[in-house]
Amino acid sequence: MAHKYVYMFKEGDKDMKNLLGGKGANLCEMIKLNIPVPNGFIVSTEACTDYNKNGKKINDDIKKQIDDCVTQLESISGKKFGDSTNPLLVGVRSGARVSLPGMMDTVLNLGINDAAAEGLAKSAGARFAYDSYRRFIMMFADVVIGVSKHDFEHDLAKFKEEKGYKDDTELTGDDWKAVVERFKKIYRDDQGKDFPGDAKEQLYGAISAVFESWDNERAFVYRRMNDIPYEWGTAVNVQQMVFGNLSDTSGTGVVFTRNAATGDNHVYGEFLMNAQGEDVVAGVRTPLNFTELEKVNKAVFDEFMTHARLLEKHYKYMQDMEFTVENGKLYILQTRNGKCTAHAALKIAIDLKNEGILTEEEAILSVDPKALDQLLHPQFDDASLKAAKKIGAALPASPGAAVGKVYFEAADAVEANARGESVILVRLETSPDDIMGMEVSKGILTAKGGMTSHAALVARQMGCCCVSGCEEIRFSGKSFTLGGETIKEGDYISLNGSTGNVYLGQVKTVEVDTDKGDFGTFMGWVEKVKGAVGVRTNADSPKDAKKALGFGATGIGLTRTEHMFFDPDRLPKVRKMILAENEADRRAALDELLPLQKNDFKGIYETMEGRPVTIRLLDPPLHEFMPQTEADFEAMAKDMGKSVADIKAKATSLHELNPMMGHRGCRLTVSYPEIGEMQTRAIIEAAIEVKKEKGFDIKPEIMIPLVGDVKETKFVRDIIDRVAKDLVAKAGISLDYAVGTMIEIPRACIVADKIVSEAGSEFFSFGTNDLTQMTYGLSRDDAGRILKDYIENVIYEGDPTAKLDVNGVGELMRTAVEKGRKANPKLKIGICGEHGGDPYSIAFCASIGLDYVSCSPFRVPIARLAAAQCAIRGNK
Amino acid sequence: MAHKYVYMFKEGDKDMKNLLGGKGANLCEMIKLNIPVPNGFIVSTEACTDYNKNGKKINDDIKKQIDDCVTQLESISGKKFGDSTNPLLVGVRSGARVSLPGMMDTVLNLGINDAAAEGLAKSAGARFAYDSYRRFIMMFADVVIGVSKHDFEHDLAKFKEEKGYKDDTELTGDDWKAVVERFKKIYRDDQGKDFPGDAKEQLYGAISAVFESWDNERAFVYRRMNDIPYEWGTAVNVQQMVFGNLSDTSGTGVVFTRNAATGDNHVYGEFLMNAQGEDVVAGVRTPLNFTELEKVNKAVFDEFMTHARLLEKHYKYMQDMEFTVENGKLYILQTRNGKCTAHAALKIAIDLKNEGILTEEEAILSVDPKALDQLLHPQFDDASLKAAKKIGAALPASPGAAVGKVYFEAADAVEANARGESVILVRLETSPDDIMGMEVSKGILTAKGGMTSHAALVARQMGCCCVSGCEEIRFSGKSFTLGGETIKEGDYISLNGSTGNVYLGQVKTVEVDTDKGDFGTFMGWVEKVKGAVGVRTNADSPKDAKKALGFGATGIGLTRTEHMFFDPDRLPKVRKMILAENEADRRAALDELLPLQKNDFKGIYETMEGRPVTIRLLDPPLHEFMPQTEADFEAMAKDMGKSVADIKAKATSLHELNPMMGHRGCRLTVSYPEIGEMQTRAIIEAAIEVKKEKGFDIKPEIMIPLVGDVKETKFVRDIIDRVAKDLVAKAGISLDYAVGTMIEIPRACIVADKIVSEAGSEFFSFGTNDLTQMTYGLSRDDAGRILKDYIENVIYEGDPTAKLDVNGVGELMRTAVEKGRKANPKLKIGICGEHGGDPYSIAFCASIGLDYVSCSPFRVPIARLAAAQCAIRGNK
Repeated sequence: MAHKYVYMFKEGDKDMKNLLGGKGANLCEMIKLNIPVPNGFIVSTEACTDYNKNGKKINDDIKKQIDDCVTQLESISGKKFGDSTNPLLVGVRSGARVSLPGMMDTVLNLGINDAAAEGLAKSAGARFAYDSYRRFIMMFADVVIGVSKHDFEHDLAKFKEEKGYKDDTELTGDDWKAVVERFKKIYRDDQGKDFPGDAKEQLYGAISAVFESWDNERAFVYRRMNDIPYEWGTAVNVQQMVFGNLSDTSGTGVVFTRNAATGDNHVYGEFLMNAQGEDVVAGVRTPLNFTELEKVNKAVFDEFMTHARLLEKHYKYMQDMEFTVENGKLYILQTRNGKCTAHAALKIAIDLKNEGILTEEEAILSVDPKALDQLLHPQFDDASLKAAKKIGAALPASPGAAVGKVYFEAADAVEANARGESVILVRLETSPDDIMGMEVSKGILTAKGGMTSHAALVARQMGCCCVSGCEEIRFSGKSFTLGGETIKEGDYISLNGSTGNVYLGQVKTVEVDTDKGDFGTFMGWVEKVKGAVGVRTNADSPKDAKKALGFGATGIGLTRTEHMFFDPDRLPKVRKMILAENEADRRAALDELLPLQKNDFKGIYETMEGRPVTIRLLDPPLHEFMPQTEADFEAMAKDMGKSVADIKAKATSLHELNPMMGHRGCRLTVSYPEIGEMQTRAIIEAAIEVKKEKGFDIKPEIMIPLVGDVKETKFVRDIIDRVAKDLVAKAGISLDYAVGTMIEIPRACIVADKIVSEAGSEFFSFGTNDLTQMTYGLSRDDAGRILKDYIENVIYEGDPTAKLDVNGVGELMRTAVEKGRKANPKLKIGICGEHGGDPYSIAFCASIGLDYVSCSPFRVPIARLAAAQCAIRGNK
Repeated sequence: MAHKYVYMFKEGDKDMKNLLGGKGANLCEMIKLNIPVPNGFIVSTEACTDYNKNGKKINDDIKKQIDDCVTQLESISGKKFGDSTNPLLVGVRSGARVSLPGMMDTVLNLGINDAAAEGLAKSAGARFAYDSYRRFIMMFADVVIGVSKHDFEHDLAKFKEEKGYKDDTELTGDDWKAVVERFKKIYRDDQGKDFPGDAKEQLYGAISAVFESWDNERAFVYRRMNDIPYEWGTAVNVQQMVFGNLSDTSGTGVVFTRNAATGDNHVYGEFLMNAQGEDVVAGVRTPLNFTELEKVNKAVFDEFMTHARLLEKHYKYMQDMEFTVENGKLYILQTRNGKCTAHAALKIAIDLKNEGILTEEEAILSVDPKALDQLLHPQFDDASLKAAKKIGAALPASPGAAVGKVYFEAADAVEANARGESVILVRLETSPDDIMGMEVSKGILTAKGGMTSHAALVARQMGCCCVSGCEEIRFSGKSFTLGGETIKEGDYISLNGSTGNVYLGQVKTVEVDTDKGDFGTFMGWVEKVKGAVGVRTNADSPKDAKKALGFGATGIGLTRTEHMFFDPDRLPKVRKMILAENEADRRAALDELLPLQKNDFKGIYETMEGRPVTIRLLDPPLHEFMPQTEADFEAMAKDMGKSVADIKAKATSLHELNPMMGHRGCRLTVSYPEIGEMQTRAIIEAAIEVKKEKGFDIKPEIMIPLVGDVKETKFVRDIIDRVAKDLVAKAGISLDYAVGTMIEIPRACIVADKIVSEAGSEFFSFGTNDLTQMTYGLSRDDAGRILKDYIENVIYEGDPTAKLDVNGVGELMRTAVEKGRKANPKLKIGICGEHGGDPYSIAFCASIGLDYVSCSPFRVPIARLAAAQCAIRGNK
């Protein structure tokens, strides 16, 4: 028997998401639960893969299976494709393994042709029939064929003008029929052939279009943001149409079973009577609150609530549902686990646990670690907020506080962000085309659209503040007026996504206290999970260290000593060291830096109270400390008592063709052992003093960066040992310290065993930023153009350095772990690259047996949750 | 029982070189063969390793073993350390596994103290005894302690002045005794303690000094040049002294059993009567030809010849021997396989084979592949030579023709070479301190020293032309006069190392015909060796290809298409392509390049006559084709009809922070598929035309550079396939081609299996230049300062990119080979990096199963010999 590619709804269930897509699997499941769902069938994700392999064609076998399912659907519905009496119309929708909201294209009312329109006119009236027909032509032409819908809209406007109509409602059935003919002509003129009257041809076309929408740029962006592999592909749902726009007893709505912004246990949604589903989602008409439905049709409302409660219990999570009422009969079109704010996610997880629906572990697994990010961002300072000039208020679509400069176009927002500006994107309404602009914005303000509009949905997922539906906004070129103020491009505004208020200028923000409430409760559960990878933080100051401790970090995985060198007070001393013409002068300059650096470390040790602290020796090439501009050169020359020419000559001598692979990391200490000596002295003396003064049992971990060879490791280690042992002996107290290596050069992974056995490395920490760049031979600084072309050509789905490259870099890491542990089974191994705060990468780190990950303070809770989830899933 | 670290000569044999060093093992062997060798013992290389590990101290156990051997030696010789009647004196010499001529320090006459001097005076006279004593003090103080010998020399000169002596021979025994006391005082003043009178203390000190001489800079340079690992360490030979300076019936000499310059089967050497061995080697006095010894003392001459013939047969190679005659009795002090010119090496190998001493395989193994290099370099053009002005003639110490600018100091030579100049180093005589200058020189001219002087020995090993002993040279500051001409620093001269002639200015050179004579015979034997790794060439032009074919290359492993792009006629077209603002303009520029590039390939195919040709797609970043200077920018702007500002803006946009890891290699074809298309078209059209025109069965191998990912490989491969298949179909003839990948990014090694199975790569070629840089995270362009410091600190022994890094890069290569062959057991794998011509690297490539190596035409014979030797040894 041929491979099965197409499934009737009754053939699937919720566990078949990989094959049928999330939407499809849930439709199947609802059929099983006897929930009223318009019937249909699903073309599987495997068919999508086959389509892409098969030169973008649906193969004949799959076509045949589609035909069989159409026949079955005709039989179930008692309707027939293209029938002039009782025509079968279907909606064709995408449905990937996980939902890509708004990303994929949809075709509704498919199956209408002249005969079917006639049939539809018989049951629903000519007005409805030909209105549906013209909508279908426009949607099909736009989505499947690529004829611009503006051509149709423009023609309709012209027709209305000719007729003297102001509003669509004034058109009669005959008018719409005339419009259908005009639309067909537009299609014919554009395509050089007639609009396809054959329903099967329409269906194949629409299915192909859905498959191809997997390849559009918006889909790539969304997948990249959400770690969704291209390979998954999308399924296609073909479902009998029901019409919310058939009559005044018809309608359509979108409902969350709990409040997606707050997590409150109340249904929260919107509906429109006499409308199609897309009208609600697109935010074109402002809908009614769902609870109003009880007044409009209590039976339907009650029935919906019964289904909603059942589904929430069944799926053990808040549901995001779509429904349509056709002439008073309720249909559920979709259910899925609802996306919500991090705040809501925590509350829902805790409530569901308390309601006995979830176990504690299930509750932990129910929250996306990435979502926590938005909880950790600042909110407005109360006093400043009171003093601020409020210029408007609208829907609090996604919580948080955002301050930034106004831009009106996604592309402008991207550019401004690249310049380092904080951006607020202001739009009439957002569309999937805006996603790149939304991605870089601190906040989004829209004039149209409700709480379930595109802008609101996307902003909530991204943890980006959003105020939507601010209808008082009046646009005028690159400016808008609101509350009597005119705000031009580049002007500052502030948004409160939790209240919906809009303020003029920059309102001061404060950081959130995350110790208390749901966050505290939830992280308390996370804390209890056994066997999770440890979470340390990257911190260069007591302030960062304290912040991370508050977020539950168990130690410091990376202190970058160079960040202290860049301090404006110290830079002259660092430069003096660089300009030194001999070792004695260099030592003199370093002697000035020593007490400063020692104090930095003391502050960090005191904050960490005996928890592990890993300090990395100086890493960047020295030219990074040299001036960039002419004025800087002059200032430095004056400061150093040298000529500008001398300073420039030094800068030139430090210039490197490939600085990433140049004179940096441990290579600096090989050239200037006195740098490593000074830093070791600062690290050890600080530890001795804090141990004596405060009694903390400090064991500094000194990390040698950019190691690639055994002997170089040994050379630097010997310097550290010599200085450290001498200091400890003189101090007259016992002090342990460990010397380890940052593993960030491919060769270090390959000779990892010897780095442990011959150079005595006591710990490893993967510097996956550099390791990735060198393993790929790709400089992140230069990757812009390359990545653009690679992503456009579907070679990479995103920046391969953004998440851990498990197949390449990961293999090298695995090798290093295996070799290192073979030499010393107790070798402590962590990661301190940016990947240490990325859930996907953390899962990999857990799977290869790392002891800890280290990330920036604000990522610590995310990492802790990700680590706990890995442990619950068995660290596989 | 404790580990044995010290061996009497009778306890060793020639196969114990690793433990006893080459010199020591051969001394042991000669004892076995009953050849008269002054007896002694050897402190092993393991003791050297222990010394270095043990904080630069000889451990007590080893000291005890030394003491035991001293006792045995006293018993054998009937003399006693420090004895006032019959004192034992020893020489202490270094002896590593392979010889490092002139590199290591030696201490002679050790054991003299006041009592022993008295004893020596009894048997050999006071003059000899105290002369020997003062020599020892000076040598010991200089070599072991580090007191400058100039202090002693200066004092001796003063003493002679006081006494009114002109010459050393005028000093009496009492004078020398007085000098000894003065020398002791110098030592005491410098060191704050007395000169060590205890013979054991002297001995431990000398042994330590030999161990430490392994760490001196000259030793590092020599090891780097000769692939000798630091780990080997050196042994120390402690040998009873015999004195060539005891009387007029005493003497010393150095002999090669054949002519080291020509290979002729005649003993060739030099000797001095009444002299110590160092006098001959150092070239201070001009010695007599060895054959003169027959007249001086026929019995000794005959005895020597008997030993020489025996040793040559025993070692199956030309021997380099040192001897001393003490009061008419012959002692052999050393024998070893002689170093000689490549020309001589071939002749000797062939003669020894013809004499039945060597088998053909042994003969092949007897020639160092690197030595062939000097055979392949140019010689003087006969006509030009006749027209040239000869200004002097001296010893033809190392053959070949050299033309260059004169420099007098090693450091100046190094700098001039770095500026790209050809250098002739002119010195009074060379010393090991000059080795870095010699390394970069095309030729060496010395005023003093014979055929076995330091300059001659080193030059022959390096394949560098050398004329020595040109005593007419008169130096004056940074110039010299010779033959009436004054040559200043930077002036050109020409040297003929085969005749010893020196010419004014630049004499024209021609290339050597290597088809004939010994070279032809020898390479004929090499040709016959079965199972050797194939040798291809890197060639970008028919001329290179033809040259390589002449040297026996079996195909082309790398044609760099960018070399054609840099052609001045084409650069404007390439720049037009780069400046193109859209694909159409780019295609137009590429269309102009197409016929030119196609013709290049036709020429190469025609030359190669159907042998495999691998062509790599464009590799360098585009900014390499942009102007460098202001004038260039202006010229280009004029040429392109654009403003200088526009051109500069483009150059700026192409600038990269780390170009090595930037937009180059296959990344260019991803961004501009039309480049890959044009190149594929040129490659395939040229093949079709040459196949049609000449009938050669051409199968182009198209190589994709800088691959790191499966999909990118597939993307480029698809472009190649599309263009190629279309062209072949249209041509109406069959033409096979292969598409493969250059493996030069670490990640490519890790995903090698998928590059074969999923992207269909048909061959791999390792680009070990880039692979090494990325694996080490070390940019060769920026490595200067780093390497200097690493070499000084004994972290690296040389540029780690110069020979294949077996432990790091090699492991990645092994992984790639294993994974690639797992996906396709017949996968063809080669190497086209610079390592492809390096014997050490070739051995590794053979051991991991590579099918071929590819190198520059002049390296082809070297690679072929290295490959044959690996095959004979079993490719292990």
